[in-house]
Amino acid sequence: MTSTPTAGARPDEVRRHNRTALLRRLHIEGPTTRAALATELGLNRSTIKALVDGLAETGVVEERVPRARSGAGRPSLLVLPQPLAAVVLAVDIRVEQVAMALVGLGGEMLGRNSWNLRGKAREPDEVITHIIESMRVLADELGVRTIAAGVSVPGVVRRSDGFVHEAPNLQWTGVPLGDRLGAALGIPIRVGNDAEIAALAEHLRGVARGSLDAVYVSADIGVGGGVISDGATLSGTAGYVGELGHMVVNPTGRHCYCGSRGCWETEVGEVALCRALDLPEGSPRGAVVAELRALSAAPAEAERKLAEFSEWLVLGLVNVVNAFSPELVVLGDLFTSLPVPLVKRVGDEVGRRSLVSRAIGGTRILASTMGADCKLIGAAELAFETVLGAV
Amino acid sequence: MTSTPTAGARPDEVRRHNRTALLRRLHIEGPTTRAALATELGLNRSTIKALVDGLAETGVVEERVPRARSGAGRPSLLVLPQPLAAVVLAVDIRVEQVAMALVGLGGEMLGRNSWNLRGKAREPDEVITHIIESMRVLADELGVRTIAAGVSVPGVVRRSDGFVHEAPNLQWTGVPLGDRLGAALGIPIRVGNDAEIAALAEHLRGVARGSLDAVYVSADIGVGGGVISDGATLSGTAGYVGELGHMVVNPTGRHCYCGSRGCWETEVGEVALCRALDLPEGSPRGAVVAELRALSAAPAEAERKLAEFSEWLVLGLVNVVNAFSPELVVLGDLFTSLPVPLVKRVGDEVGRRSLVSRAIGGTRILASTMGADCKLIGAAELAFETVLGAV
Repeated sequence: MTSTPTAGARPDEVRRHNRTALLRRLHIEGPTTRAALATELGLNRSTIKALVDGLAETGVVEERVPRARSGAGRPSLLVLPQPLAAVVLAVDIRVEQVAMALVGLGGEMLGRNSWNLRGKAREPDEVITHIIESMRVLADELGVRTIAAGVSVPGVVRRSDGFVHEAPNLQWTGVPLGDRLGAALGIPIRVGNDAEIAALAEHLRGVARGSLDAVYVSADIGVGGGVISDGATLSGTAGYVGELGHMVVNPTGRHCYCGSRGCWETEVGEVALCRALDLPEGSPRGAVVAELRALSAAPAEAERKLAEFSEWLVLGLVNVVNAFSPELVVLGDLFTSLPVPLVKRVGDEVGRRSLVSRAIGGTRILASTMGADCKLIGAAELAFETVLGAV
Repeated sequence: MTSTPTAGARPDEVRRHNRTALLRRLHIEGPTTRAALATELGLNRSTIKALVDGLAETGVVEERVPRARSGAGRPSLLVLPQPLAAVVLAVDIRVEQVAMALVGLGGEMLGRNSWNLRGKAREPDEVITHIIESMRVLADELGVRTIAAGVSVPGVVRRSDGFVHEAPNLQWTGVPLGDRLGAALGIPIRVGNDAEIAALAEHLRGVARGSLDAVYVSADIGVGGGVISDGATLSGTAGYVGELGHMVVNPTGRHCYCGSRGCWETEVGEVALCRALDLPEGSPRGAVVAELRALSAAPAEAERKLAEFSEWLVLGLVNVVNAFSPELVVLGDLFTSLPVPLVKRVGDEVGRRSLVSRAIGGTRILASTMGADCKLIGAAELAFETVLGAV
């Protein structure tokens, strides 16, 4: 329901709009025929022909005879996006490591590297310098030029200019990350909150593909959430996304660095999981995951140890579902290691206690299947969003 | 951040798009000159001339010499929307009464009526019959034809077809309100959740005017919320909006009909306010408001009586701000009668405890100034959204 006066669209914007829509289709869904493009985009064949011919001339797409032929007659040519026609840099800054990749049009990772963060290496200056150097090495090795970059940060980020207001688990405050990288690399930079970026990845290439209204929630040291609403990622004032991990679920719970107490993060984040599992706070990630996997084979023990954790997980999810009415909630990071029966029970309980879930015929709650590259993939898509129109 | 492949725009859609944008501008912001329209909509003067001439020919707008002239030379003509060129029906169904109005292009109320709901009169069939009859009487009196209707309902509503899943305080369940009214009246009907509709009204014509990211929260018997995100009302799966009143704020609180306990509604709704004010549950609205006004003159007593209520109000608002990152929260209905110093303290406390509020430089928390017509005004705008393109 758009309600503000919108500016008028001029005819000269239409061709560009259609070209971007076609390129986005090929980039996300992969190669297809001109006929299929016409049907999917609702454009006539001559418009499609003009657009594809134009893109083929500049080497952005190629047309090829498909290997498998269907039916008799002349085979329909496949339109394929060319990875090297547009290459972006994707960066995933986490508490324990930074991962980077160069990603080509169509989503293929052309090259990647990563390094661990310890001590001084976590200072913003060090990280920024390292990103810039690594990108140059990667681009030289591959002989490509990058045209934009997307960066995932576990913190509160202003989307408009990539200013990191606060990334508590990195101990970063007030870092103009977007401006710094932009000045050094000379390309458009977009910085996003890690959960927002993961939500984008799940929506475009993961289990939330095709879901117009979905929420991604993940537990790392922090707990974060990203919201897809009507097919687009949701943000608020100045491009700041919400911080679902700081919804208060337990008003008498532990104090949180944010100024509240009993935040969802303090009740279901990695530290809370360690407590529930009788592991020392700050145990290595591998130990937490191993313990969760072991519990999958011991249902009674899992139930006992994770009862309180599950209750807070349910409560936060009820609030998320009642706030955003999503058809799907994707659980990421540490949550993907939770015992499957527990996730099932949590989902059932959310359905029972959420008015909205009952109204919309149930909200599915699924574990992410994207694995560790989720945020890298999302960061690449954030970058592509900026430049697909100019490829 | 639009992320799904979008369909292409054809040149023949552009004129229509521009015409609707111009009409929406006049409808919401009122009369202005062609020159101002060109500037605001980013269109050139010949496009504006063609659009205004077309609208003047069909009587949708009129051009007039302004009364006050600025400067020398030929005065710029004002373009005025003509109220009778497009008339919609607005209906506000509340627990205690139904209010209706016929609203013309530009937002003027041309006629209205209302009736109280008691006992049998609250049955869906009775209400629907009464709405249909009243609308015919109103339209006959005024000699106008209505082209669409918008209806506000205090419940969980599917936006796509106006199906009322549940309106607990009306004791309605599974009422196909949109279909029933549409079949009887033969015009497009849109039905919305009352808080969603109030948010739309505040965004277009109230204190949230100009705010791209705002949340409206109100207490009646129920507590509801509506979200404006990036200038448009937010909804989720199948058009169901969220139910902010059913976010759990107090996990050990009272049981709620929704299946949870300690919902925001059970802690800060009218029943909770009656408890805090030592009034019997179900006291008339006037008594609750009078008691709140009396407390405005007795700060110490207000503090004491409303301490617990305030804490739950703060907690829910922290969650709302952390979830949606709004620059503004508008408090409606009963909340507008809260003592001003209390609202101020609540706002300060939300700022202290919300990570997101600090990041975005503070979230303003203001009482609505629209009064009792807020939902009627919003319902009219919901109807206009559907038909402005076809006027």
